[in-house]
Amino acid sequence: MSFNTVSLIKKKRDRQSLTNEEIAYLIKEYTADRLPDYQMSAFLMAAFLNGLDEHEAASLTEAMLYSGTVLDLSHVDGIKVDKHSTGGVGDKLSLILAPIVASYGVPVPMISGRGLGHTGGTLDKLESIPGFKVDMTLERYKKILQKCGMVMAGQTEEVAPADKRLYALRDVTATVESIPLIAGSIMSKKLAEGIDALVLDVKFGAGAFMKKQEDARKLAQSLVAIGEDFGKKTVAYLTNMTQPLGYKIGNWLEVEESMEALQGEGPEDVMEITHMLSGTMIWLGGEAETVKEGIAMSKEAVANGQAFEKWLELTREQGGDTEVLKDFEKYNKAKYHFTIEAQESGYVRRLDAYKVGIASLELGAGRKTKDDEIDPAAGVVLQKKVGGHLKKGETLATGFTNNKESIEIAVETLEDAFEIKQQKPSPLTMITHRVDRKGVHPIKD
Amino acid sequence: MSFNTVSLIKKKRDRQSLTNEEIAYLIKEYTADRLPDYQMSAFLMAAFLNGLDEHEAASLTEAMLYSGTVLDLSHVDGIKVDKHSTGGVGDKLSLILAPIVASYGVPVPMISGRGLGHTGGTLDKLESIPGFKVDMTLERYKKILQKCGMVMAGQTEEVAPADKRLYALRDVTATVESIPLIAGSIMSKKLAEGIDALVLDVKFGAGAFMKKQEDARKLAQSLVAIGEDFGKKTVAYLTNMTQPLGYKIGNWLEVEESMEALQGEGPEDVMEITHMLSGTMIWLGGEAETVKEGIAMSKEAVANGQAFEKWLELTREQGGDTEVLKDFEKYNKAKYHFTIEAQESGYVRRLDAYKVGIASLELGAGRKTKDDEIDPAAGVVLQKKVGGHLKKGETLATGFTNNKESIEIAVETLEDAFEIKQQKPSPLTMITHRVDRKGVHPIKD
Repeated sequence: MSFNTVSLIKKKRDRQSLTNEEIAYLIKEYTADRLPDYQMSAFLMAAFLNGLDEHEAASLTEAMLYSGTVLDLSHVDGIKVDKHSTGGVGDKLSLILAPIVASYGVPVPMISGRGLGHTGGTLDKLESIPGFKVDMTLERYKKILQKCGMVMAGQTEEVAPADKRLYALRDVTATVESIPLIAGSIMSKKLAEGIDALVLDVKFGAGAFMKKQEDARKLAQSLVAIGEDFGKKTVAYLTNMTQPLGYKIGNWLEVEESMEALQGEGPEDVMEITHMLSGTMIWLGGEAETVKEGIAMSKEAVANGQAFEKWLELTREQGGDTEVLKDFEKYNKAKYHFTIEAQESGYVRRLDAYKVGIASLELGAGRKTKDDEIDPAAGVVLQKKVGGHLKKGETLATGFTNNKESIEIAVETLEDAFEIKQQKPSPLTMITHRVDRKGVHPIKD
Repeated sequence: MSFNTVSLIKKKRDRQSLTNEEIAYLIKEYTADRLPDYQMSAFLMAAFLNGLDEHEAASLTEAMLYSGTVLDLSHVDGIKVDKHSTGGVGDKLSLILAPIVASYGVPVPMISGRGLGHTGGTLDKLESIPGFKVDMTLERYKKILQKCGMVMAGQTEEVAPADKRLYALRDVTATVESIPLIAGSIMSKKLAEGIDALVLDVKFGAGAFMKKQEDARKLAQSLVAIGEDFGKKTVAYLTNMTQPLGYKIGNWLEVEESMEALQGEGPEDVMEITHMLSGTMIWLGGEAETVKEGIAMSKEAVANGQAFEKWLELTREQGGDTEVLKDFEKYNKAKYHFTIEAQESGYVRRLDAYKVGIASLELGAGRKTKDDEIDPAAGVVLQKKVGGHLKKGETLATGFTNNKESIEIAVETLEDAFEIKQQKPSPLTMITHRVDRKGVHPIKD
């Protein structure tokens, strides 16, 4: 169908809803280069300010989904389940939960992204493992999934190209932080993977894109609504990202912490969320009767080593060096390191995930511009987190980098990230809500 | 000063006000091709939806004004006064009032536009006079003004180039109908003319861009505020554009009606608004003590022929053929004409200016796309207007065109423009309000 682009922009500008066909037209013409960036950005700003309703968000998702290849994984037995996180600081959960779930025969076809701003990206972490390849043909992708029961790859040009272009445009036109636009972007990519079910980790707090829990809840509801609209079982959790996840932030450092976690030495907060997500995935994959049973199975997979074995198997399959995963001394040491110390005794009351993310980015763990090279060894190791006690002069954190000039600003940013008080703070609740097609449910400890 | 463009878009998106420097930066970078269309269109949509305050509108005007040449007319004696109309159907007032005002020694440096959509443009009307040139160098422009006390020209590339680019972008991104953006666009061009005072004809009703009187009032207030902000005496009138002005619509037809008007045979509605505007201009130019005196002088200039003489003088100076202005039989006859008749006896209760404008456009008097050629002879002559009585079968209007294929749709549109009722309607008030720096004042008959 053909429409007048200006009329469609006007419609959204005037707070009317666009039909499925109208949204499909906009996305199709844009992807085909027949609709210029300047019209799309005007539409995006109108959508940002006036919103998209549930129907429009689903239409947008569908249009972006079918702008490219939709994988057919029907040749792979089992209920294919993936996880998606909205991104945070120190979020290495994919590396831990994917092998846990796959070790029970639930196929995990995982397409991940790169670091964005202060947040890390799974692809950058994987590529810090020597030899590990994340770029592959769709054929190879399917083959690895069939063989290992899991695969970890980057988004190819063939998957949701409309989303790729739209995202780049939103980034430079101040139209990123819109719940329906974010939901459409996430879901179009995830649905293109050929999955049957999806678990979402929707983060809130200083280190997340959604600072407010309420916004995270709205996003989770939008994501679940779209997923269910497409006939995929979708469950979301709202999780706390006020302080970084775990103690290690930076690509190779996070691989290290993930391997520790897979061998039973993971930090408490990391494991709490991991088991909830992987337990839910095992349940969605039909290998557990309940989420609770799934969580127990997830813990068992770590305890008995099957998850770590699965990870090593995948690493070999994707060309990675497994030796360095067993002995971290062998590889990727940063040339410089520094520490910051407590200026007074007391409890860590606040540890700002955003600032830690920025410090890590400054040290080389992230990109300031798209063309920046990642330094895999760069990052931060925290000694204490919220609730931890220390004496004056004790180490709060250690920074690693190969770029000496970045140290000064990183020190300043890191010092600023910590708040030390005399009173012991109450512990952070890591998972606050579960969102599914039935609604929003508080999580009891 | 340098700013981050995305932050500035975000600021407006989040309903904050931009500083003078921030707006200047956006316009400067855009004009210099360092800020891409897609960022500007996102900003424009945010400005459209969240508004620009009075200060921002003035900053925008200033930035666009100084994007190009600002004429220095200080070598021309007298208080330079111009008029601007927001555009309507049958609006040929510039051709009548400019020579009236100039005939009293008040310099009128007039830069006009072309027809847009259903509305006519002064330049197209002028160019229907054989030989009349509206494109000229700035030097020639100044020379004609000095010699004749008036000049009528098109906007050159040098005047407010930022506005030209912004307008083209707004046109294709559904961001035209924004009061501060319209006000900035109008005032940047007018202020660039080097005028000392300005009269604005802000139209409302079916044939105007502002359908509602309230929007016209807001626009008038915004225009006056900007003008006064720049130290120019600015007066606006709200005038009725529910039915076309005068009886003749179309380029050459309107030149004909203007010449009739200059020779004392102008239609009542045309002359009422003309005298109010020209009377105000004579007063602003310092040649009358009051607007009332200015109006009397305006009428006198028509009655004694000095205004028509001034027009002939200008026409000769700008290369136009004055013989055809005295005998309209000599030139520009359309190949085809048709009439529409009353289907029943009664009074014209409604005569939709927009529909008449569209019919005239269809016949060839306007452009559907920027590259369309104007047919100077095309247009409509009305026999009756609101309040007029006719018997069944009497002629309502006559259409003229050189394009036979346009007749069918023009007939349909014209018939649709008339509404005949048994009851005599109350007469239309042509000028409802005067807006100046002191406020909004109703006009009493």
